[in-house]
Amino acid sequence: MNVYLDNAATTAMDERVIEAMLPFMKSHYGNPSSVHRQGREVRTAIEKSRKKVAELLNTSPSEIFFTSGGTEADNTAIVCGIESHGITHAITSPLEHHAVLHTLEVCAKKGLIKLSILDVNEKGEIDLNQLEELLRSNLNSLVSLMHANNEIGNLNDLNKIGNLCKEYGAFFHSDTVQTMGHYVHNLKELPVNSLVAGGHKFHGPKGSGFLYVNKDKKIHPFIYGGAQERNMRGGTENVIGIIGITKALELAYSEMESHQAHVISLKNHFIKGIQEAIPGVTFNGLSGDIEKSLYTVLNVSLPPSEANRGMLLFNLDLEGISASGGSACSSGATVGSHVLRALNHNPERDAVRFSFSRYNTIEEIDYTISKLKDLYLVEA
Amino acid sequence: MNVYLDNAATTAMDERVIEAMLPFMKSHYGNPSSVHRQGREVRTAIEKSRKKVAELLNTSPSEIFFTSGGTEADNTAIVCGIESHGITHAITSPLEHHAVLHTLEVCAKKGLIKLSILDVNEKGEIDLNQLEELLRSNLNSLVSLMHANNEIGNLNDLNKIGNLCKEYGAFFHSDTVQTMGHYVHNLKELPVNSLVAGGHKFHGPKGSGFLYVNKDKKIHPFIYGGAQERNMRGGTENVIGIIGITKALELAYSEMESHQAHVISLKNHFIKGIQEAIPGVTFNGLSGDIEKSLYTVLNVSLPPSEANRGMLLFNLDLEGISASGGSACSSGATVGSHVLRALNHNPERDAVRFSFSRYNTIEEIDYTISKLKDLYLVEA
Ligand SMILES: Cc1ncc(COP(=O)(O)O)c(C=O)c1O
Ligand SMILES: Cc1ncc(COP(=O)(O)O)c(C=O)c1O
Repeated sequence: MNVYLDNAATTAMDERVIEAMLPFMKSHYGNPSSVHRQGREVRTAIEKSRKKVAELLNTSPSEIFFTSGGTEADNTAIVCGIESHGITHAITSPLEHHAVLHTLEVCAKKGLIKLSILDVNEKGEIDLNQLEELLRSNLNSLVSLMHANNEIGNLNDLNKIGNLCKEYGAFFHSDTVQTMGHYVHNLKELPVNSLVAGGHKFHGPKGSGFLYVNKDKKIHPFIYGGAQERNMRGGTENVIGIIGITKALELAYSEMESHQAHVISLKNHFIKGIQEAIPGVTFNGLSGDIEKSLYTVLNVSLPPSEANRGMLLFNLDLEGISASGGSACSSGATVGSHVLRALNHNPERDAVRFSFSRYNTIEEIDYTISKLKDLYLVEA
Repeated sequence: MNVYLDNAATTAMDERVIEAMLPFMKSHYGNPSSVHRQGREVRTAIEKSRKKVAELLNTSPSEIFFTSGGTEADNTAIVCGIESHGITHAITSPLEHHAVLHTLEVCAKKGLIKLSILDVNEKGEIDLNQLEELLRSNLNSLVSLMHANNEIGNLNDLNKIGNLCKEYGAFFHSDTVQTMGHYVHNLKELPVNSLVAGGHKFHGPKGSGFLYVNKDKKIHPFIYGGAQERNMRGGTENVIGIIGITKALELAYSEMESHQAHVISLKNHFIKGIQEAIPGVTFNGLSGDIEKSLYTVLNVSLPPSEANRGMLLFNLDLEGISASGGSACSSGATVGSHVLRALNHNPERDAVRFSFSRYNTIEEIDYTISKLKDLYLVEA
């Protein structure tokens, strides 16, 4: 059996997304900046896509900019947010993705900002009082806090954080790569200045993404060149990427309820099953709590085991089960996870992130649990 | 008849490129950073691609970095070249693409560098003596000069420029977006520190590109995040883009001779035909000189005409002929071309860039010339 449980790393493309992209590979090849027929037809498709994304997020097309992915979008929001608004202080958490953390660290190293890193408890929770303290003593800060953590699934309360940021005049960027397409983002209501998406996290293509930036906090471009993306990002548009991410988001929104219900049932089934199968199992961060965590992610902490120590992902892979030791972006198990380190996760225990999608089945979960049980029973 | 003569703006994808990409849309969807089977198979495909590109350019895979396109690659080379090597002076020409020019202007505006812009004559030629003067009085400069101009086709002598740069310890970046896949670049011989490619200029996908940086002049990343691209570019890889640009480059190299011959014959045919058809026609830059210009580009300057003034592209479009008023990246005719302005092109005359590919035919050229003749004969 082949079981893909690494959907927080990337997802399989939806066939309907591929179908939508194909005409733009096969026949509609014009450069959207060209004024002739071939150019105009592609320009129209791009602007329709922008309008569709804006509509789904309940905002204006002039606030949506397509990028090459979540990472570029994060870099843009952070670097250009800081530069465009004369910001000299930033606040983040140690659990952010490297697209945020490394970018801020480089800004700090260049002397552009002073960087404050919030404390987290062993469940990965931040303290809003500490955030408020920092905001109060550093007006005009940039705050970068993710919506859901990609390793342990912890959800931040964007409303509370955003309202605090508003109160103290801070620029609030949220890395929403893990929640876009999985939750509804209503930008009319949500107090964020910028957020981001990567298409391949919700059955769209890799190399596609977008950045939302609120019109009240305009920023300058990150990549300079032609007048594309309303002068906000130079470079001939990745047309198939734009078509693909838009179709994927459209499908995600139209089918969100049923997929949520399905994936939540998988996660509940996994939690229950593994607790029964392997005594001493715990869940990292808040991922064991359905209410407080991303429903697609379960980070399992397994009791110490000689036979599996450092080999668990490998052993699972041999059984056809694909999972991850943390962020795929830091090449899995080998480097170790900065998130689990920040939580003081016991290095004697192996941690595995299982992440689900609408393509997974209950049978796959049962198979996975039975294989885990086998791997751990050897020693019991 | 539909005639696409805007191949310097973008090209139709080769069917064989699409075929190569499809499996990575339909089944090989793993994240190359994941350590399991699905991840490893995609990682292998990416590293094979890097090896293939390096092989074709006669360099090492460790010097090839995939990007989202030519523009991002230009930005990376310039911004990070300047920052990584403590460069405080840059030299360029007014004919560079905006991906270079705007990027350098922003660096100058930020106070990172002083920017010197070379003079050009009315044919768009630079003066290597002036370059040498500037290099001599500004050691440790960055020089950014393109291989071939995208509007008028002028070819720069990268060997001469590169050797001057070497002599005076300058970092030499060349924007090779218009020549990659159209000429052989032998990086063992070519004295450049960095060069770039955009896949869609040689029948690959939009949103794909790469940057070559010589190992003796390493630079830091432009986009920070995960450890992708050997720590040189954060962000989940655009896998289909990488597969696509590699396949396109492979095809371009294996079929280069026959395509060159075919396209050169089209260009010669166009030059001869239009000169016969419309008295007073001239060619902008060096584009009328087959030896000194990019063989894919012909920039035609037409005699003043009331009926066509400012409407020529539109009139051609009505006849099914797609061409461009200059760089597609500055949305064609409407904005006016900074390149033609730098050449003091007579604004009474309309200029059209016709750019060819291996998919064009002699019949298409004849059709285009006859339509141009019709448009201009109205007044004769
Ligand atoms: C000379 C040159 N440089 C850079 C670019 C930018 O390439 P892209 O728009 O694919 O990023 C182009 C494309 O028009 C070009 O012709
Ligand atoms: C929370 C978070 N932010 C940013 C990213 C970066 O996205 P991408 O690698 O697609 O650019 C990821 C992907 O792993 C992520 O999970």
